[in-house]
Amino acid sequence: MKKRIGYIGLGLMGKPIARNIMRAGYPLTVHNRSQAPVEELVADGAQPADSPLAVAEVSDVVFTNLPDSPDVEQVVLGPNGVIEGCRPGMIFIDNSTIKPETARSIASKLAEVDVSALDAPVSGGDVGAKAGTLAIMVGGPRDTFDSILPIFQAMGKTITYVGESGAGQVAKACNQIMVAAQMVAMGELILLAQKSGVDPRRVIDAIQGGAAQCWALDVKPQRIFAGERQPGFKAYMQHKDLGIVLDTARAYGMPLPATVVVMQLFEAMLQMGMEDLDNSGVIGVLEVMANERLILEAENQ
Amino acid sequence: MKKRIGYIGLGLMGKPIARNIMRAGYPLTVHNRSQAPVEELVADGAQPADSPLAVAEVSDVVFTNLPDSPDVEQVVLGPNGVIEGCRPGMIFIDNSTIKPETARSIASKLAEVDVSALDAPVSGGDVGAKAGTLAIMVGGPRDTFDSILPIFQAMGKTITYVGESGAGQVAKACNQIMVAAQMVAMGELILLAQKSGVDPRRVIDAIQGGAAQCWALDVKPQRIFAGERQPGFKAYMQHKDLGIVLDTARAYGMPLPATVVVMQLFEAMLQMGMEDLDNSGVIGVLEVMANERLILEAENQ
Repeated sequence: MKKRIGYIGLGLMGKPIARNIMRAGYPLTVHNRSQAPVEELVADGAQPADSPLAVAEVSDVVFTNLPDSPDVEQVVLGPNGVIEGCRPGMIFIDNSTIKPETARSIASKLAEVDVSALDAPVSGGDVGAKAGTLAIMVGGPRDTFDSILPIFQAMGKTITYVGESGAGQVAKACNQIMVAAQMVAMGELILLAQKSGVDPRRVIDAIQGGAAQCWALDVKPQRIFAGERQPGFKAYMQHKDLGIVLDTARAYGMPLPATVVVMQLFEAMLQMGMEDLDNSGVIGVLEVMANERLILEAENQ
Repeated sequence: MKKRIGYIGLGLMGKPIARNIMRAGYPLTVHNRSQAPVEELVADGAQPADSPLAVAEVSDVVFTNLPDSPDVEQVVLGPNGVIEGCRPGMIFIDNSTIKPETARSIASKLAEVDVSALDAPVSGGDVGAKAGTLAIMVGGPRDTFDSILPIFQAMGKTITYVGESGAGQVAKACNQIMVAAQMVAMGELILLAQKSGVDPRRVIDAIQGGAAQCWALDVKPQRIFAGERQPGFKAYMQHKDLGIVLDTARAYGMPLPATVVVMQLFEAMLQMGMEDLDNSGVIGVLEVMANERLILEAENQ
């Protein structure tokens, strides 16, 4: 019989992931603070539950997908939390991006009640979540990972067992170093092209087939040139993730001389009121710094 | 009849590019300061010439591929330079990465003797040069570009007309912002993983299929983990290119807050005596900063 799945946290990423799990034939129970996405998934055949506890009671595997470390702690270990509804043998999987040390401490508390935990953050944006092509980076017991692999395969394409508890979150922190660096570099190069009197669209065409090639250059420029800065992946989440990166680096004594500057630009982005824009919208900070506004496609015609 | 091609500067990039042009059936004359690569190409059927002037005298199209702006100026405009051997209707194409303003000033001097010039820097490394899969970004007169397209197609895969004279060099400067940012981010994330007690190889496996995906992560990590830091693309060339980026940005009043830090790390790399290593070897600067040595594959077995 197929495992019964619970999914808590139906945001930009959680909702399409939960839907893909359901489409793969798993019975699904869902919970979310706001009701709209719950109703959407219930219309597609999911069961609603009114607390994390209630989700855990009827599930063999409980997923969470929440904004930050304290949210996951609260939903798992707090009142009416997953831990109150679980039983020995249940599996807990966190798709959120949180601190590696929080992932480890939650896993160790769940281990006391014989619940095995995986940290399984994802990358690939809302586009990847919908298409089921996410990269999933997993930390925790290897045998638990093996038993969950078919479910991961319903959610993503590149599924990697990274190592012990917390290792998935370390991989995600590493991922965010590269992603954020690319967003800032993309902003700098687009505006430099325009300032130099060269059409940035042509520059993107010219460079995306060479050594600069990256997912960011493949996916984001057409949206930026169209004046579309809605997420995608919200700037305040990018900022939060970079906070995890720098906290982790400090804990282990690792200087990150380029990432700190990238973080400062996202810090500025939040202060300028652009926290709900896509992370590629960091070009907006550079526009202010350069006193230059990117000419949009519509204005060019 | 096929155009007669001259190629001046047979380095890591120039030699394989010249060879691909010859393989496409163009009669080729070559010149280089050191003789070894000349002899290699002559053995394959090229003609040697003992000066840029002599190359130009027997060629319809003259290419250069040289380290820096003053080298191109010298070879084109100096004594025994291309300009002394050219005739009206000849075409000059520079595959070097130099300052956009130098590219424009050379083009304007050549225009006075009815020679049309294209700036056509490339990206894709020695790997792309050999495989004929380079990205080529071109600035100059559109009709000259159109007449040269078949030759570019023998050298590369993504061939983009960017705009007027100098626009190819602006695109290449933009390219280098992204490339250098990725090299530094890759170094930071690999060492952060190791410092956190997680196998960096697994982290690379985990992240290269997601939003962090890039050419650098596709190509470089296996070499880094094997302890192989030979070029590829030399650090002192990356440093030189970032100098062009920052000079251009200053000329147009464009702040590049992340790129300046990236430049500082390549500055340090040169000072530490690592100038002849691959640009991905910038991880060596971070190793010193973190007092952490990357554990190589051989030591892990």
